[in-house]
Amino acid sequence: MTKIKDRRSIRKYQSTPIPEDLLNRLLEEAMRTPTMGNMQLYSVVATTDPKIKAELAPAHFNQPMVTAAPVVLTFCADFNRVSKWCEQRDAEPGYDNFLSFINAMSDALLFTQNFCTLAEEEGLGTCYLGTTVYMPKDIIRILRLPKLVFPVATITVGYPDEWPEQNDRLPLNGILHHDVYTDYSPYDIDSIYEYKESLDENKRFVAENNKQTLAQVFTDVRYTKRDNVFMSETMMEALRMQGFIL
Amino acid sequence: MTKIKDRRSIRKYQSTPIPEDLLNRLLEEAMRTPTMGNMQLYSVVATTDPKIKAELAPAHFNQPMVTAAPVVLTFCADFNRVSKWCEQRDAEPGYDNFLSFINAMSDALLFTQNFCTLAEEEGLGTCYLGTTVYMPKDIIRILRLPKLVFPVATITVGYPDEWPEQNDRLPLNGILHHDVYTDYSPYDIDSIYEYKESLDENKRFVAENNKQTLAQVFTDVRYTKRDNVFMSETMMEALRMQGFIL
Repeated sequence: MTKIKDRRSIRKYQSTPIPEDLLNRLLEEAMRTPTMGNMQLYSVVATTDPKIKAELAPAHFNQPMVTAAPVVLTFCADFNRVSKWCEQRDAEPGYDNFLSFINAMSDALLFTQNFCTLAEEEGLGTCYLGTTVYMPKDIIRILRLPKLVFPVATITVGYPDEWPEQNDRLPLNGILHHDVYTDYSPYDIDSIYEYKESLDENKRFVAENNKQTLAQVFTDVRYTKRDNVFMSETMMEALRMQGFIL
Repeated sequence: MTKIKDRRSIRKYQSTPIPEDLLNRLLEEAMRTPTMGNMQLYSVVATTDPKIKAELAPAHFNQPMVTAAPVVLTFCADFNRVSKWCEQRDAEPGYDNFLSFINAMSDALLFTQNFCTLAEEEGLGTCYLGTTVYMPKDIIRILRLPKLVFPVATITVGYPDEWPEQNDRLPLNGILHHDVYTDYSPYDIDSIYEYKESLDENKRFVAENNKQTLAQVFTDVRYTKRDNVFMSETMMEALRMQGFIL
């Protein structure tokens, strides 16, 4: 029912479960997403068991959707299946490297987005949890992901129990470049961010956080350098653990 | 017109150009894709100039779509715009690190897929070029991407001049796991790949390449360890060059 241009992230769900054949059909249709060499370098773990959802919750900073949503989908970059297939067919797989991770991550994310679009067309609500790559090691352990499998996106899914306002977007000229990239002048930046900065909710957000500018809420509170540097290291460690880098 | 379940990659296009307001509308609708903290960590370079398309072609292994398609879209992970905004607003950006690249790459790929879905619904054909991450340094140079901008997906777009058969997919149980990941047994692998291996076109593909198994075509011809290891290094170098890793 919901088209891409009308979508919003849904964080509150009705308790109604999602029929298994509906979920299967949506995943099957999403499998039409193009992938590298038609290898389908992804897997999806559909978690409905309340015990496992409760285990996953802290890895997602206890966002309430993880335990409240009827289904938690963890989309993974997966070179395990293909590599096992190669080994069983007298072929030597060479996918324990960084480029292969990037390829599989791409396959998995394009598949994830098509699943969401199809689910929303069907009247379901989804929320994308960016936390997946913040604490990947916990997710890997809880979902028992073997080597060459890495979680790249988590989606909570359910029938919507809210219909929030759509949030703001930058103007198209803020993201579109013609022929080549034209770097932003100070004037461009002012004009691109003017609308976002003018919104009452964002002004409130600045005040609540005792900051002078909206950008400072991002750099000092929400996405700090310190956290990013720390999580870059744990992400690299997790890639090493899963065999994607040396 | 085309739904996700009916889609196929289109590599031959009519010469009809894509009206600029159609392209703009599709990109604007795709901007409804969720992104990290609503930061929209992506940019898209729309290349129509034949000269620049011709420069891009070798970076995409001279796949003919690059010069033949009316528009080549290069979707980029972009922390440049946000970082410039922060600097102009007395905020210190901390996005010159690997996790930030992963976050921006995720934003860019989800946006890319929604653009494709919308374009296909509108009767356009798209083809995803996996080559983007093979020779990123050339693309960065040609499209003049500044630091903290990295190309992650290239899509050729145009009105279809072919309607190929859909290609095969693995069975759903080959990619879906319940609650936790259940690793594949040798029997599972046989059963998941049975259909793919049974197809005449794939048998022909094995014979043409003088191989014994389809998997060997992947490991020995199409996606070799040697190439993957080499391209992993150039990808890392490009990430360093763009300021995403030290």
